[in-house]
Amino acid sequence: MTPIPVILDCDPGHDDAFTILLAAAHPSVELLAITTVAGNATVEKTSLNARRVCTAAGIRGVPVAAGLAGPLHGAGIVARNIHGESGLDGPGFGEPTVPLDPRDAITLLRETLLAHPGPVTLVPTGPLSNIAAFLLAHPGLAAERVDRIVLMGGSTGRGNRTPAAEFNIAADPEAADIVFSSGLDVTMIGLNVSHQVPAAPGVLTRLEALGTPLARLCVELLTYFGTTYREVFGLAAPPMHDPLTVAHLVDPDLITTVRAPVAVELTGTHTRGATVVDLDGVTGRPANARVGTAVDAPAFWDLIVDAVRVLGERSGES
Amino acid sequence: MTPIPVILDCDPGHDDAFTILLAAAHPSVELLAITTVAGNATVEKTSLNARRVCTAAGIRGVPVAAGLAGPLHGAGIVARNIHGESGLDGPGFGEPTVPLDPRDAITLLRETLLAHPGPVTLVPTGPLSNIAAFLLAHPGLAAERVDRIVLMGGSTGRGNRTPAAEFNIAADPEAADIVFSSGLDVTMIGLNVSHQVPAAPGVLTRLEALGTPLARLCVELLTYFGTTYREVFGLAAPPMHDPLTVAHLVDPDLITTVRAPVAVELTGTHTRGATVVDLDGVTGRPANARVGTAVDAPAFWDLIVDAVRVLGERSGES
Amino acid sequence: MTPIPVILDCDPGHDDAFTILLAAAHPSVELLAITTVAGNATVEKTSLNARRVCTAAGIRGVPVAAGLAGPLHGAGIVARNIHGESGLDGPGFGEPTVPLDPRDAITLLRETLLAHPGPVTLVPTGPLSNIAAFLLAHPGLAAERVDRIVLMGGSTGRGNRTPAAEFNIAADPEAADIVFSSGLDVTMIGLNVSHQVPAAPGVLTRLEALGTPLARLCVELLTYFGTTYREVFGLAAPPMHDPLTVAHLVDPDLITTVRAPVAVELTGTHTRGATVVDLDGVTGRPANARVGTAVDAPAFWDLIVDAVRVLGERSGES
Amino acid sequence: MTPIPVILDCDPGHDDAFTILLAAAHPSVELLAITTVAGNATVEKTSLNARRVCTAAGIRGVPVAAGLAGPLHGAGIVARNIHGESGLDGPGFGEPTVPLDPRDAITLLRETLLAHPGPVTLVPTGPLSNIAAFLLAHPGLAAERVDRIVLMGGSTGRGNRTPAAEFNIAADPEAADIVFSSGLDVTMIGLNVSHQVPAAPGVLTRLEALGTPLARLCVELLTYFGTTYREVFGLAAPPMHDPLTVAHLVDPDLITTVRAPVAVELTGTHTRGATVVDLDGVTGRPANARVGTAVDAPAFWDLIVDAVRVLGERSGES
Repeated sequence: MTPIPVILDCDPGHDDAFTILLAAAHPSVELLAITTVAGNATVEKTSLNARRVCTAAGIRGVPVAAGLAGPLHGAGIVARNIHGESGLDGPGFGEPTVPLDPRDAITLLRETLLAHPGPVTLVPTGPLSNIAAFLLAHPGLAAERVDRIVLMGGSTGRGNRTPAAEFNIAADPEAADIVFSSGLDVTMIGLNVSHQVPAAPGVLTRLEALGTPLARLCVELLTYFGTTYREVFGLAAPPMHDPLTVAHLVDPDLITTVRAPVAVELTGTHTRGATVVDLDGVTGRPANARVGTAVDAPAFWDLIVDAVRVLGERSGES
Repeated sequence: MTPIPVILDCDPGHDDAFTILLAAAHPSVELLAITTVAGNATVEKTSLNARRVCTAAGIRGVPVAAGLAGPLHGAGIVARNIHGESGLDGPGFGEPTVPLDPRDAITLLRETLLAHPGPVTLVPTGPLSNIAAFLLAHPGLAAERVDRIVLMGGSTGRGNRTPAAEFNIAADPEAADIVFSSGLDVTMIGLNVSHQVPAAPGVLTRLEALGTPLARLCVELLTYFGTTYREVFGLAAPPMHDPLTVAHLVDPDLITTVRAPVAVELTGTHTRGATVVDLDGVTGRPANARVGTAVDAPAFWDLIVDAVRVLGERSGES
Repeated sequence: MTPIPVILDCDPGHDDAFTILLAAAHPSVELLAITTVAGNATVEKTSLNARRVCTAAGIRGVPVAAGLAGPLHGAGIVARNIHGESGLDGPGFGEPTVPLDPRDAITLLRETLLAHPGPVTLVPTGPLSNIAAFLLAHPGLAAERVDRIVLMGGSTGRGNRTPAAEFNIAADPEAADIVFSSGLDVTMIGLNVSHQVPAAPGVLTRLEALGTPLARLCVELLTYFGTTYREVFGLAAPPMHDPLTVAHLVDPDLITTVRAPVAVELTGTHTRGATVVDLDGVTGRPANARVGTAVDAPAFWDLIVDAVRVLGERSGES
Repeated sequence: MTPIPVILDCDPGHDDAFTILLAAAHPSVELLAITTVAGNATVEKTSLNARRVCTAAGIRGVPVAAGLAGPLHGAGIVARNIHGESGLDGPGFGEPTVPLDPRDAITLLRETLLAHPGPVTLVPTGPLSNIAAFLLAHPGLAAERVDRIVLMGGSTGRGNRTPAAEFNIAADPEAADIVFSSGLDVTMIGLNVSHQVPAAPGVLTRLEALGTPLARLCVELLTYFGTTYREVFGLAAPPMHDPLTVAHLVDPDLITTVRAPVAVELTGTHTRGATVVDLDGVTGRPANARVGTAVDAPAFWDLIVDAVRVLGERSGES
């Protein structure tokens, strides 16, 4: 089977880091490019973090380009309380050897799509600023060459940035609206799914047992992530949001989805950035997305642990 | 123990009917007055329905006055899909013998508060239009004579009128904002609680077994209510929203509450009328309400069945 | 001719003071009551100021009752930069002999309307909080007994509190929406008219020439008012907003009006409180108000000077 | 003097047509490219119209590329009532010989900026969708290579699409917000200026007297434009909005401007798309634009008539 060509748009970010690992490790994915965006930290930091993760995991030949420094409108927000000052606090990282591509993210997206023979899947796991800017700038190319968009963001219920809004959507609601209104094939994996995959102690034990430097780094990442989630939300273990996207790609049965109308609240005083998902069909709006509702948690963790194992062994060989 | 003096502000409505029954039947409540408001049906219909329920249950001497015919702003909504054309579809009702008080609801509220020696509890189970209009018109009297407000409305999670908003709040968001911002002691019992008390077949069996005409009428009400809930929301049994308010009054241990900031969304395009309840303290806003989170369902149903029994027997005696 | 029965709802305020004088002095007006509201200053101060003006002008037998201490929603604003710390800075005032009515404003409005044999005209010259609260609380009485509402507020063009919104409407946009949506006969006199009647030096000279203590007090009021308008807006003379309402009542030809749709902006981030007046019929909305567009300035000033003369002479006689 | 390098972004449109003529004819302007956008008509029609105008005026070698088919969010609006079915009703046009560039507008903008040795001025005279999409996609390039933006849009007072909003801004408020918030040097020429340059009969007489086919076409354009403006707004002559931008560029003394804070209203129910210009400094916001306030109308019309003359003579020669 031909692997699925993927461009990953992210803001690492602890859980984003695992998305990079899974996308790079899994044989069903061909990771064409990584674009970065402001979100969990500034775009300078998330770009550096993407290069750090690629360097640490021995991921070579995948261009990493920096995108938007903030949302389409207004001031940006970062998630320092969750991801720390660097956006990827916990482990120590050396100077990354993976370079920053000189192109901006939208140019890398455009040229990657033009260069690839067939349609490509976009996997955004941060605020949707880059994706929206690309869709606006090159709507014809997007319609022709984007196969689908599988994103982490939103919720069918309560949020985390505010009681109503999840961080990625709250960080750039207008970008999210552009993506959900694009007419493209959009799949949303939100908090209602990711809170079903907390990185419980058993996961850390399995990673630790792998014994590679990469596995140790992963444990340090999850340990830090767990600490902030416990302090801020009182959760026993941190939800593993972002890699659910790639997990859904490589195993379509892993996450249950339903087609539903999703509206992004742009004007709410207390609800800006909420994803209003009409599961009961009370709004009369047509479905514009597939929405994740449940996940096979053990199968998900197998994918994660296996990705760390594969990359750790590869690094050891090189 | 002195019973709690209560003014019930309602829009009957199937579940409102049970609120009237519980308030009239329970020895810990002194039902001073009933005011009606547009909501489940027009105010003409909800006023008629309140008088029908009082008539059927033998409730005499409690004045019933009609209030606002719609929300503070914009056009009203009614819940015909849930409560039927009359607002209380299901049973047949004769012409009510309980009269309509000639005063408007705000005048009845004012004069009842002035006449009662001590503070009074307001129990709104419909849109908050009357309560808000009263608080605006007579803020000094309200501060002095309203003991607390225990309302059914809102949700800590998803809504029912829209994915984000519960019917009572969606029907008059500005009124709700005025109530939640009033500085009075406000307790909100929302969908997150009422969906824990579905009127399952066992409840109907218990009511049926009472054998009184009132009990039969109650079964007919719940049967109709169950049908619409099944059709509209696919629920196996209809949530018994409104009487939770009075149940909370007569048994403070029945419903678990937490103090929390509650904001009513007024400006959202897709979320207008949502109650944004900050359970995690992420907004930094001060708590302005007590919010119900859990209910002892069996104890609640005992209260309901007992109220129908008591009133049914009383009617039989008279 | 029977004089027009009027209830004045105001927030004195320098120009409000002249409205009281004109309403009390002119033979075509029967001033039934004065209600006060927060606006140019707190309601405590505007109530005190109304009593001061009545005392200084020898206005006796007109009840003055205090109304809402702030807008229907959110925090109030005051116009200290225009009207000074007291809301009526400039002249010295002694302790007023006119008392404060013990009733709240909505009760005074209700009882005055019930007591008067025919319909009454409401003249609001401050934020519309009291009027809206009254219309909400007693819609039936309002429909039956309010002849019309002639208000100062809004603009067909630019605002003053913000570039888009005039102070009275900006101070309580929801109240204004309730008034403009009430279905009653509403006439709006806005900034576009009041900026056509600046209190130029010639006016002060005429007042000064009257030689009474009241006239001197009026000159001091206008002198202070002129100073703040010059400092804040760079205007050569202060617009005499509020008395245009009563001037319109007593001389319908004085102000040109057109019927037009007026919408109050409630949700704008930068335009909240703007009165959107569709003079060109581009919105397709039905007309809901008469809107002042032009004024005969000399005739207006004759009314004002004459009112000060009449009251000054009356006071001298007593 | 080196001519000013300009990219014209437009939606012809009758007044846009004159902008193209002025930019192409005036020796102080080097017209590098034309991008088109949906606005006065669909982007297909405005693209065709730009090519028609270039063909009719003998403008060769200026690439014309099509941009966005609608606003960043929501459904587009067109101005059929003003510009007719084609967007440029009135004259007959043959098949244009000027081709459509195969690149999309954002790519043409990017490549033109990269190819030009120095900074370039952007002149948008339609909705700002293309410009916003470009600024979002390539913020670094824009900061480096965009000299300034001189746009037609907005108003310091009343609008035309709605009582509050001018057409170009109302057609894509989010795009306008992105432009005004970009930190670039932005000059806004709005309705308050363009209504000072109505195309009165004297202008048509002067154009007619030129005697060229292009001049006759211009007269037909203005005649049609005058008819719709008379019918829709009751104006005696149509305001010549768009060419004021290029006129300002070639003669900086022609239009008086002030630095001021300009906010674009995004959330208003009745004011969406309004440009809120704080001329009095009441908002405390920093100035982010230069705003036109007055124009030397005779000098403006000299520029227009001269452009038509020059191009008409050139076409005659070729």
